[in-house]
Amino acid sequence: MARTVNARGRPSGRRRGDSGTRAAIEAAAARQFAEHGYDRASMRSIALEAGVDPALVSHFFGSKQRLFVAVVELPFDPAQAIPVLLEGDPAEVGERLARFLVGVLENEAGRRRAVGLVRAAASEAEAARLVRALVEDQLFAPIAEHLGADNPRLRASFVGAQMVGLVMARYVVAVEPLASLPADALVANLAGLLQKLLTGPIEG
Amino acid sequence: MARTVNARGRPSGRRRGDSGTRAAIEAAAARQFAEHGYDRASMRSIALEAGVDPALVSHFFGSKQRLFVAVVELPFDPAQAIPVLLEGDPAEVGERLARFLVGVLENEAGRRRAVGLVRAAASEAEAARLVRALVEDQLFAPIAEHLGADNPRLRASFVGAQMVGLVMARYVVAVEPLASLPADALVANLAGLLQKLLTGPIEG
Repeated sequence: MARTVNARGRPSGRRRGDSGTRAAIEAAAARQFAEHGYDRASMRSIALEAGVDPALVSHFFGSKQRLFVAVVELPFDPAQAIPVLLEGDPAEVGERLARFLVGVLENEAGRRRAVGLVRAAASEAEAARLVRALVEDQLFAPIAEHLGADNPRLRASFVGAQMVGLVMARYVVAVEPLASLPADALVANLAGLLQKLLTGPIEG
Repeated sequence: MARTVNARGRPSGRRRGDSGTRAAIEAAAARQFAEHGYDRASMRSIALEAGVDPALVSHFFGSKQRLFVAVVELPFDPAQAIPVLLEGDPAEVGERLARFLVGVLENEAGRRRAVGLVRAAASEAEAARLVRALVEDQLFAPIAEHLGADNPRLRASFVGAQMVGLVMARYVVAVEPLASLPADALVANLAGLLQKLLTGPIEG
């Protein structure tokens, strides 16, 4: 990190290290995702702000979606998770999603990241915008859209509300008996709620 | 408030004013509810900490439940709301509760208080404990218990998670299209979720 600051502060022409370039891109991306939202931020504008060639952004992060995941530090990669969740009977997508999300949250590192995101969203406008972009664009909307139900984005935002509330109630506020409910029972109850939100009737 | 500090700081025997007494009781109550939870805090121990006669606590606040409501600054009084919500067909309790809660949240003062509680709970352990005591003991558990379903407290904590998530998603993070969903559609969707949580199958 110190090298980045030095390199940016002194226009000496000295080659910036990989870790410095990566950090500069992530800083620019975090600012632009928070300020403009996921859709309006572009690889090109992020590269411009970071002072690097757009090809370098692709080289380090592959795609805008992967750059976003790196910046918000999601506890998992939607690009890997979503196809698996969509395989199989649509009548059981709620259970697959519940099992996956509870698995992430019951893992210590996953829970720490999720709690950090939710806590940050409650207090900082920038983090709130990142979480909003995440919920709207990256995670639940693709699932709802693939299922072909009406109002996919409204469904996605209700699923997001459900998960933020669960993180708050079980891990932050520790409301009993939800906080000490065994993971299997949590999956069973959450499955029904998510199935209803993803494929049940909804008023838009 | 300044009078309270003076009165407590100087053991002069001068009579403490009503507002000073009330403030001292509220401060002691907030500390004890947060530290011990609602059940284990008592009118007597709160009076002792505030340095007043227990009869004065009853005089000002009536009951422990009302003292709690005053301290956490709920946007409504459960003692008034719950009986109304329980009147009528149990198959429509989800809709009555949804209409009531959305009414509170769509009112500016109610929304401000709810958002303040949720934000505080995300960052401060004391506020988190107050919200936990609120959800567990005061608001949703009595409704679930009166309905006579199994696992009433687990149902109550899921309803609490639902509402905390809704407040975060609609008012704090402003996830679209949930944030701009008309209140009537919000009531309709929330009603189904609350009905399921209060009277549907649940795994404890």
